[in-house]
Amino acid sequence: MSSQTGKKLKIQLFGESHGEAVGVVIDGLPAGIKIDFDELDAFLKRRAPGGRLATPRKEEDKPRFISGVFEGVTTGFPICAVIENTNTRSGDYKFKDTPRPSHADFTAAIKYGGFADMRGSGHFSGRLTAPICIAGGIAKQVLAQKGIFIGAHLKSVGLITDDSFPAMPQKEDFDALLTKELPVIDDEALDLMIREIEYTRDELDSVGGVIECCAVGVPSGLGDPMFDGIENILAKNLFGVPAVKGIEFGLGFESSKIKGSQNNDEFTVKDGKIVTKTNNCGGILGGITNGMPIVLRAAMKPTPSIAKKQNTVNTKTGEQVSLEIKGRHDPCVAVRAVPVIEAVTALTLLDIILED
Amino acid sequence: MSSQTGKKLKIQLFGESHGEAVGVVIDGLPAGIKIDFDELDAFLKRRAPGGRLATPRKEEDKPRFISGVFEGVTTGFPICAVIENTNTRSGDYKFKDTPRPSHADFTAAIKYGGFADMRGSGHFSGRLTAPICIAGGIAKQVLAQKGIFIGAHLKSVGLITDDSFPAMPQKEDFDALLTKELPVIDDEALDLMIREIEYTRDELDSVGGVIECCAVGVPSGLGDPMFDGIENILAKNLFGVPAVKGIEFGLGFESSKIKGSQNNDEFTVKDGKIVTKTNNCGGILGGITNGMPIVLRAAMKPTPSIAKKQNTVNTKTGEQVSLEIKGRHDPCVAVRAVPVIEAVTALTLLDIILED
Amino acid sequence: MSSQTGKKLKIQLFGESHGEAVGVVIDGLPAGIKIDFDELDAFLKRRAPGGRLATPRKEEDKPRFISGVFEGVTTGFPICAVIENTNTRSGDYKFKDTPRPSHADFTAAIKYGGFADMRGSGHFSGRLTAPICIAGGIAKQVLAQKGIFIGAHLKSVGLITDDSFPAMPQKEDFDALLTKELPVIDDEALDLMIREIEYTRDELDSVGGVIECCAVGVPSGLGDPMFDGIENILAKNLFGVPAVKGIEFGLGFESSKIKGSQNNDEFTVKDGKIVTKTNNCGGILGGITNGMPIVLRAAMKPTPSIAKKQNTVNTKTGEQVSLEIKGRHDPCVAVRAVPVIEAVTALTLLDIILED
Amino acid sequence: MSSQTGKKLKIQLFGESHGEAVGVVIDGLPAGIKIDFDELDAFLKRRAPGGRLATPRKEEDKPRFISGVFEGVTTGFPICAVIENTNTRSGDYKFKDTPRPSHADFTAAIKYGGFADMRGSGHFSGRLTAPICIAGGIAKQVLAQKGIFIGAHLKSVGLITDDSFPAMPQKEDFDALLTKELPVIDDEALDLMIREIEYTRDELDSVGGVIECCAVGVPSGLGDPMFDGIENILAKNLFGVPAVKGIEFGLGFESSKIKGSQNNDEFTVKDGKIVTKTNNCGGILGGITNGMPIVLRAAMKPTPSIAKKQNTVNTKTGEQVSLEIKGRHDPCVAVRAVPVIEAVTALTLLDIILED
Repeated sequence: MSSQTGKKLKIQLFGESHGEAVGVVIDGLPAGIKIDFDELDAFLKRRAPGGRLATPRKEEDKPRFISGVFEGVTTGFPICAVIENTNTRSGDYKFKDTPRPSHADFTAAIKYGGFADMRGSGHFSGRLTAPICIAGGIAKQVLAQKGIFIGAHLKSVGLITDDSFPAMPQKEDFDALLTKELPVIDDEALDLMIREIEYTRDELDSVGGVIECCAVGVPSGLGDPMFDGIENILAKNLFGVPAVKGIEFGLGFESSKIKGSQNNDEFTVKDGKIVTKTNNCGGILGGITNGMPIVLRAAMKPTPSIAKKQNTVNTKTGEQVSLEIKGRHDPCVAVRAVPVIEAVTALTLLDIILED
Repeated sequence: MSSQTGKKLKIQLFGESHGEAVGVVIDGLPAGIKIDFDELDAFLKRRAPGGRLATPRKEEDKPRFISGVFEGVTTGFPICAVIENTNTRSGDYKFKDTPRPSHADFTAAIKYGGFADMRGSGHFSGRLTAPICIAGGIAKQVLAQKGIFIGAHLKSVGLITDDSFPAMPQKEDFDALLTKELPVIDDEALDLMIREIEYTRDELDSVGGVIECCAVGVPSGLGDPMFDGIENILAKNLFGVPAVKGIEFGLGFESSKIKGSQNNDEFTVKDGKIVTKTNNCGGILGGITNGMPIVLRAAMKPTPSIAKKQNTVNTKTGEQVSLEIKGRHDPCVAVRAVPVIEAVTALTLLDIILED
Repeated sequence: MSSQTGKKLKIQLFGESHGEAVGVVIDGLPAGIKIDFDELDAFLKRRAPGGRLATPRKEEDKPRFISGVFEGVTTGFPICAVIENTNTRSGDYKFKDTPRPSHADFTAAIKYGGFADMRGSGHFSGRLTAPICIAGGIAKQVLAQKGIFIGAHLKSVGLITDDSFPAMPQKEDFDALLTKELPVIDDEALDLMIREIEYTRDELDSVGGVIECCAVGVPSGLGDPMFDGIENILAKNLFGVPAVKGIEFGLGFESSKIKGSQNNDEFTVKDGKIVTKTNNCGGILGGITNGMPIVLRAAMKPTPSIAKKQNTVNTKTGEQVSLEIKGRHDPCVAVRAVPVIEAVTALTLLDIILED
Repeated sequence: MSSQTGKKLKIQLFGESHGEAVGVVIDGLPAGIKIDFDELDAFLKRRAPGGRLATPRKEEDKPRFISGVFEGVTTGFPICAVIENTNTRSGDYKFKDTPRPSHADFTAAIKYGGFADMRGSGHFSGRLTAPICIAGGIAKQVLAQKGIFIGAHLKSVGLITDDSFPAMPQKEDFDALLTKELPVIDDEALDLMIREIEYTRDELDSVGGVIECCAVGVPSGLGDPMFDGIENILAKNLFGVPAVKGIEFGLGFESSKIKGSQNNDEFTVKDGKIVTKTNNCGGILGGITNGMPIVLRAAMKPTPSIAKKQNTVNTKTGEQVSLEIKGRHDPCVAVRAVPVIEAVTALTLLDIILED
């Protein structure tokens, strides 16, 4: 087991959905960084439950910093931040013998031999993305001071896609999203997505989505060929976000369908700087940044917890049984995962920059 | 820079396309493994150039083992295997000041300040996949002794897709591919792909493709939640294969388009064993194997080296110039990358198994 | 900065002497381990302040487990344990401009640019050894279930040495120490050590010491040649204990003074098992355990905080100034470090065993 | 097994004493470093066998660089350097069933189940220190360009000690050693050591020694508290040198015998810079460099291979048998290990500096 990642900037997650708390230790942040706690709270709020499109579980996600920060400034020592679990509904874990389809119930039972506290999905819960956002939110602030902006938006929900995002976005493109109900640019697509999510929820079902994340202002020359490229490390960390089943950079899978003459990004000069005319590579060539925006997409599967009746097996008796999952679940996990993908991208890039 | 990966089974690559040799050190392979060198050679041949669909550069890819193997058996000490470069065409590196579009020329120039030996793309070259296949070929043999089979096939070339592959494949499904000109199941798709590749090459262009790789017989319970899941580690290593721009597991990006009730894999009992009816999760839930086949796909971009005229910039003068890339290039890099994706999958899974 | 160590069993420390809390995240402990909390408390008490030979700072060192333990049993998820700081004396950090000799004041000021919360020595404080003992105390319990015992004793205080410890000790040799005021076998040496410590304290001074630690019952064949040997990994972690300035195994520095014929451990057969007649190698050959007790010694420097007047420099003005350190300091840091050395040895060996 | 170390600058060793070759891959060296090959050869010669005080095995230790260096300059790609084994005496490995006392024969047999190629001690051989010196020799050159000098000398052989070395040495102190038969300052001690080694060799025995290594000009503020301190990382790597059984910094074990008032290094101002009057801490406080010379000592045990008759056990039959080791062995392994300790110190410090 390792809920730890990073080389120079290390992130160690802990906690369970229905345990006492969830939290994170951040080891390797330089000393002297003034944390803007209001901005951090606003960032955490983007992930927090609430609203008509998310789980009704209400939790404040108010982190308590118990080390590493002194008078609002990082000390250089490891930061430990804890979020107490206040709105857990006590009760037994019901899926020990009847694992929910496409959940970690079955694999956790095998791996931990029934000892894992799987109430609310335990350490596999989306709740663990709250401490990820603490670390990532701080990383975003540090990157901003270096002129690097990280932003994400909802690219698609089910079959509804927002194609209006520019291939070489600026920070401003993302600022416009903050006041919207969903982080979607095209208002028509936004309306359709809301309707799709509400319809899906009413059908006791869930739906998948794609999140697109960009990093603007990343210096060129970061990353390495082979196994320590920007894509390798980002992918490794992004697959840590629950429900991610695919990661692509630039045109990604689309590039597999076209010709080299279509995919290649030709060079040109703009404002005295060598840039590419297109950004099909997503800002990364040979594992190394080329100075153009990093563009990546994460495929989020539909929330496996659905209220609809499903079939499973009683693992003790071998009997086929039917299952109805009660509880408070997001009809589209991609919605609240938008800031989480930002957070992971931010802390990964900051790690790479600090290591460089 | 780190051309090194792995925890318990460590792989360290070295070498350049036009240097003296390419090679690999494999550290962590248990003692006492009898290597089948004929089988290894056959595996390396699948990656080697030649044939009407690949680069005409001829090279034997005959590895010399200079440590770690004694009388054909692993000793437990680090294995170093070297392939001498015999068919390099000497000559200068021509793209120092006129970087090829979508190549590592530009990013390497920034990162290494012009000191990198970039002839033939240097350490970024696809030639480095030969030592990857040495390590992966041995890993495949070790896994086979544990009842685990790793196989890959060409899922698509450009817009032509082979959809005939079963979602829960067996070893036999892959054996049938070995005698074919391309590792494609459906013969009609195969013909179309060959025609597409030949047409693309005649147009002085290149084309992308998708490789699907499966691991059959992997025990359940391997991997961890969050950052050390099977998906995380496989993705990290697979993005090390040149030209990979996307990685997905199970339904991957497709799962983002559907409902939970469609995507969820219901449990059932088969031959007294709990299995899933479908395999949309690709054998991995919560980062942990569930005993079903691991299924992943790698999106390969079209070879950036095309003979067609392209535009670039002279980085010294800032002038726009046109570029024609001579040389011996694969019209579809996905073709020869099939065993490479197998190799990386094999050595990653073996590392995870040895660590477990 | 990295207060993190371990491969399979990862330890992440956090906290400062005068901050809110100190704590540890333990990631990688197998599921299903029943923790004996009474035994853990007893172990922590061995490190806790109090008694006539230690600092009068009173603190209970009562850990609160906020994750990873469910109904007293490990879940397989990361364990976070926190000890609140209750007995901190608030007040300013006085040594910012007048660094204490042989303390981390000076180096911390350079590294963290004055942002580190150095009250009570901050994250450099011996107080961080409390969470080390939580992790190590649990590791000791896990090892005990595998038949491995870890014990340490005070080998010397200043010039007074206890030479009565057997070279191939048993668990029983250590049990006898638990009721003594100091973990010393020879009662005469014990009396002299107590007198030496009291005398030193009365002189407003401090004194160094040597701790000897043994691991009994470790299976043979653990560890690797070169950089991942048992000695390498133990040494790396043991130098993490504040005040350690030297580590040796078996005869250690003594072996540098003698002949091969004196140092070599000849083999013999005992109870049907191949053993060595002597244990000059301390149970490790070529980085690998040979089945004999692992024996190591840590040299602890005298506590740098002494009440005696010392000279230092005002780093702002460059003036020579004199310094008197008030506060509550251990006259011999080696005394309370005995269980800490055990703890680090235990968690290191458990990591190696889990990884093997 | 892991013959790999380093974070930013990674070293991967391979090869066996009687195999085809020994070598090293160095991954992470910046591009553009001009290697002085004559200086490197001179450094390797200090480790090479020959002379009246070492093994008569004659080998040139001429490395062949097969990657990562282009026209004498590092490219930024991994460097692979290979030394062919030319002077191996073929023949069987004789100690499979009768392990040599205090050798790795016994532990290797357990770990590798008899598959390791242990002729000449295989991968455990001191011959592996040749590739360490390649990496370390280059690291020394890179450090020298940064104004950092690494030097070592023979502190003691058996009971004969050279105490004339200054606690705060300069590069010049080491230059004087290069022309001497042994790297010893005091000529009387030097004579006694030579006599001791010759006498020991004539007695068919071996003798231990201590090597002292210093790093002059290291900037302050490098390293971290707890587990990533300078001492931790140096110790981890130094225990990778065969025969090292103890490592200490500054006064080391001596500091355990004295008072805080004697051990503490008071601050003063010299040439406008804050320095310490003494250097009892060996340049490291709280894991972090303080700008004073780093001083460490490695205890080298006597070569276990002695020609004198010894007892061992036939591991197959359980019979007690006597053993006479023929072959070409160093009577004092500490002599040739002096540059090896320098090499490990250099590559470790360069890694830390590159990572910082």
